[in-house]
Amino acid sequence: MGEPAGIGGELTLAAWCLLRESGPAFFVIDDPDRLEALAAHLSIKCRIARIGHPHEATNCFTSALPVLPLRLVAPVTFGRPSVEHAAAVIEAIGIAVDFALNGHVSAIVTNPIQKVSLYQAGFPHPGHTEFLTALAAGEGEVAMMIAGPRLRVVPVTVHQPLREAIASLSVERIVGQAVAADAALRRDFGIAAPRLAIAGLNPHAGEGGALGTEEEDIVSPAIVRLQALGIKASGPWPPDALFTPRARANYDAAICLYHDQALIPAKALDVDAAVNVTLGLKIVRTSPDHGVALDIAGQGVADPSSLVAALQLAVDIAERRKSERHVA
Amino acid sequence: MGEPAGIGGELTLAAWCLLRESGPAFFVIDDPDRLEALAAHLSIKCRIARIGHPHEATNCFTSALPVLPLRLVAPVTFGRPSVEHAAAVIEAIGIAVDFALNGHVSAIVTNPIQKVSLYQAGFPHPGHTEFLTALAAGEGEVAMMIAGPRLRVVPVTVHQPLREAIASLSVERIVGQAVAADAALRRDFGIAAPRLAIAGLNPHAGEGGALGTEEEDIVSPAIVRLQALGIKASGPWPPDALFTPRARANYDAAICLYHDQALIPAKALDVDAAVNVTLGLKIVRTSPDHGVALDIAGQGVADPSSLVAALQLAVDIAERRKSERHVA
Repeated sequence: MGEPAGIGGELTLAAWCLLRESGPAFFVIDDPDRLEALAAHLSIKCRIARIGHPHEATNCFTSALPVLPLRLVAPVTFGRPSVEHAAAVIEAIGIAVDFALNGHVSAIVTNPIQKVSLYQAGFPHPGHTEFLTALAAGEGEVAMMIAGPRLRVVPVTVHQPLREAIASLSVERIVGQAVAADAALRRDFGIAAPRLAIAGLNPHAGEGGALGTEEEDIVSPAIVRLQALGIKASGPWPPDALFTPRARANYDAAICLYHDQALIPAKALDVDAAVNVTLGLKIVRTSPDHGVALDIAGQGVADPSSLVAALQLAVDIAERRKSERHVA
Repeated sequence: MGEPAGIGGELTLAAWCLLRESGPAFFVIDDPDRLEALAAHLSIKCRIARIGHPHEATNCFTSALPVLPLRLVAPVTFGRPSVEHAAAVIEAIGIAVDFALNGHVSAIVTNPIQKVSLYQAGFPHPGHTEFLTALAAGEGEVAMMIAGPRLRVVPVTVHQPLREAIASLSVERIVGQAVAADAALRRDFGIAAPRLAIAGLNPHAGEGGALGTEEEDIVSPAIVRLQALGIKASGPWPPDALFTPRARANYDAAICLYHDQALIPAKALDVDAAVNVTLGLKIVRTSPDHGVALDIAGQGVADPSSLVAALQLAVDIAERRKSERHVA
């Protein structure tokens, strides 16, 4: 479901319209009454099918959007998240994770949440990814990847002020995230020998120390350690040269040192087709690469491309894991 | 000329081949013997015409590359900048600026320089832009703009370690650079009421203080001050959302807070067509948006697109300034 006051509901309806014939089939954990009202409000031709268990979703998918009902205790006002919905938002994620852990679904896709109203309701996690890590961590580190047709990036630091993000960089942190990226590229993306490009922090990657020392002190030692682990890591690359078409042809993922070093090129290049993938969980989880967009919620103008890409990528990863298990 | 051991020479030859018929006409301040040898080495059909004064360039341009001779005192080895060439590199810039200040040329375009060998020769300026500022500053602040077909960016801080760049941000610095950008967009780009998008520093532009305070402490007050000056400034915008196609439609230039916040999207989106423009000088100066590329110098594989775009933009700006003067 995600935040009901945001664009998640209308994106779900739009995604069903686009995928009902071709698949992949999906169901949504949401309030069926509010989705029916939303479809009517936006004149979207989408029948709602209430289901009691995931296995019912596949059969009805071509004729109706399968909804596993979740009751919202208060009416939804577009653009106005309410603390009264927080419990349901959190419950929807928990139910989805349980289904994935028990094998009833092959993957979960999460619509965006509005963190502030969840915090007000006592939600103890900084965000989606940390909550999912608590519920379904795998053996290695969990990492966030933004994957689009033109670029895959993994930010080593994410939701921290930029000053703090820089201060928190360490050899261990870069190595841990790069190892997670390497494992996921093999397991989930079917790349036998992934090439990782590690970004520098400073302009021109520090220009030999003249423009900063983190490259020599932290990034280069991390690359040496990764190479010793047999990982094809290169760098530290000048950040501004790393995202040109020629540079992108030379790696499978860029390991970035802070949020915007990763997200600026990802969104500039692949805005509507980029997907957020959580690497290193026991389950498969993807998410559209945008927020709740409160300013346009309920208008029917939100673009479902990223949600559709997230659904497709989730199924691709799930199938690859399944076929790997069969081979093994 | 720029650094003779880099790709500047072959780019100049290639640009002449591309522009000899259509223009804009240009001449190069360089060693004619080394350019002749370079053309022969790369099998580029480019005749060299030695000229004694800029006014001779236009007449011969269709049949030969006009070269105002400058003697290099030592042979050039591709990829190996030599301190022995530093004086000539610096002299070429000085001559070009003099011609522009005296109205003998309408604009100057600088090939990339290798700073380290200039420093070794006692060059006291951090780079090209600072040298040009010393020679030809205008009345307001000087700023650097990267201008491409899809994006114009002005970085408020440039060649500093990222930590220092953040620490050096101030309301005054943002206002000064934004004012320079606004003036240049009017004067040099013919935009009557430029729209400036001011980037935030932190992820999600600080998310109301939760992810950093520079937006509230520095960026927002700068925007208020700019608006009070009658400048159409907006922001602080979340950096990762600022460079999508939809966002770019809403501004004429993005004012960025650090080097890579500006250069990552500029190079990702407009790699071969982006041009470096120095705003706020008395003269018109552009430069290709790349370095000396020592690794590929002398191979004939360097792409002249950015130099060609720099030549074209220099002429466009010069014509606009000239017609403004006539109107005035």
